[in-house]
Amino acid sequence: MIEGAQEKIGVVLLSGGLDSSVVLAHAISRGFRAYALTVRYGQRHGVEIDAARRVARALGATEHRVIDLDLGGFGGSALTTDQQVPKGPREPGADPIPATYVPARNTVLLSLALAWAEALGARDLFVGVSSVDYSGYPDCRPAFVEEFERVANLGTRAAEGGEPFRIHAPLIRKSKAQTVALGVELGVDLGLTRSCYDPAPDGAPCRECEACQLRAKGFDEAGVADPVRGGDPR
Amino acid sequence: MIEGAQEKIGVVLLSGGLDSSVVLAHAISRGFRAYALTVRYGQRHGVEIDAARRVARALGATEHRVIDLDLGGFGGSALTTDQQVPKGPREPGADPIPATYVPARNTVLLSLALAWAEALGARDLFVGVSSVDYSGYPDCRPAFVEEFERVANLGTRAAEGGEPFRIHAPLIRKSKAQTVALGVELGVDLGLTRSCYDPAPDGAPCRECEACQLRAKGFDEAGVADPVRGGDPR
Repeated sequence: MIEGAQEKIGVVLLSGGLDSSVVLAHAISRGFRAYALTVRYGQRHGVEIDAARRVARALGATEHRVIDLDLGGFGGSALTTDQQVPKGPREPGADPIPATYVPARNTVLLSLALAWAEALGARDLFVGVSSVDYSGYPDCRPAFVEEFERVANLGTRAAEGGEPFRIHAPLIRKSKAQTVALGVELGVDLGLTRSCYDPAPDGAPCRECEACQLRAKGFDEAGVADPVRGGDPR
Repeated sequence: MIEGAQEKIGVVLLSGGLDSSVVLAHAISRGFRAYALTVRYGQRHGVEIDAARRVARALGATEHRVIDLDLGGFGGSALTTDQQVPKGPREPGADPIPATYVPARNTVLLSLALAWAEALGARDLFVGVSSVDYSGYPDCRPAFVEEFERVANLGTRAAEGGEPFRIHAPLIRKSKAQTVALGVELGVDLGLTRSCYDPAPDGAPCRECEACQLRAKGFDEAGVADPVRGGDPR
């Protein structure tokens, strides 16, 4: 860093999946000291959390914090309850928002990132949402992210003036293949990331849930071999 | 309830203070089955949580849930750290947002209420913010609440159509005296509520912090004696 230059600080939501890991690398490549935030919100498995820890370490996050919040207790999602994770292609005429949607998850996650950012004096938040090869979750679309940025600037000290908050969603209009390519370009070890909604106890992906399907499609279209073949790397 | 009538469900943020308790009574008086949500977010004392439990029981909330979330770990507020709670009148020229502000607190609390509401199938959220006799917190103002309502309707299943979310902030333009009067009118036992930022171990209010000062002013102007005199009632 050039001496005397302003240090940029960003808070990055990190699930341990492909997208958020690439976003962490993107933030660091843009010169941000990255504070990575992982929320253990009641996912049925800890595979994602372990992946997040490995990714944060490998990419050089300045700090990685894992916080607990029992969203699962509210119910309403196959990701946090005993409800079965859907496998295989979607039925025609099915609900456009699948059972794996977690009610208001990204609103909650962004609000927590905002709270940490404000406490740190950061004004930049990074989130790995995409509205291209995605599951149809409403809280992954550009209009949602833009609206949340307005909330951030009204509901914090930024409302009194000074530098506004910026919500960066660098993947929002990227296909999964473009995200894979960006990850490769940024030198991310994609073998550390985990996307599966329903992994085996050893961390091996099921290869049938929608997250596995989207990931496989992305690697295929990018012409890259997915380094994740079996269970957890270490 | 008239047989066959649609049952209305609302999620009410309940801190155990005067304002949120009056809002809970308001929601119930409007015919809502009230799901009260209290967040133990790292407040230095449990007095508010105890008060919330008593109030939820006394007013007949359908369910009262207390969830844990360590906002205090992020720092940045006198309410969640060792930093001293300011006492007495404000210094001239002081920061318009005092040290008791918790970064992004109401964004976080509303997002949690939204998550629970969506899981319950509720579309009505109630929050006791006011922008009249208040501490200057940005996340208590009408523009913030209106903007959050837009986020709620973009970041959930409501984005696909159907009934939109409504954020009710019935006190937002009421003075503290008007809130006290409304509480009396609705039959709220105001002696169960606790407002102090820095209570004694037995729950007795300090009478010097800004929350105590605003509460005293409200009761005075309403011509009502504050039933809270000492420590916890039971």
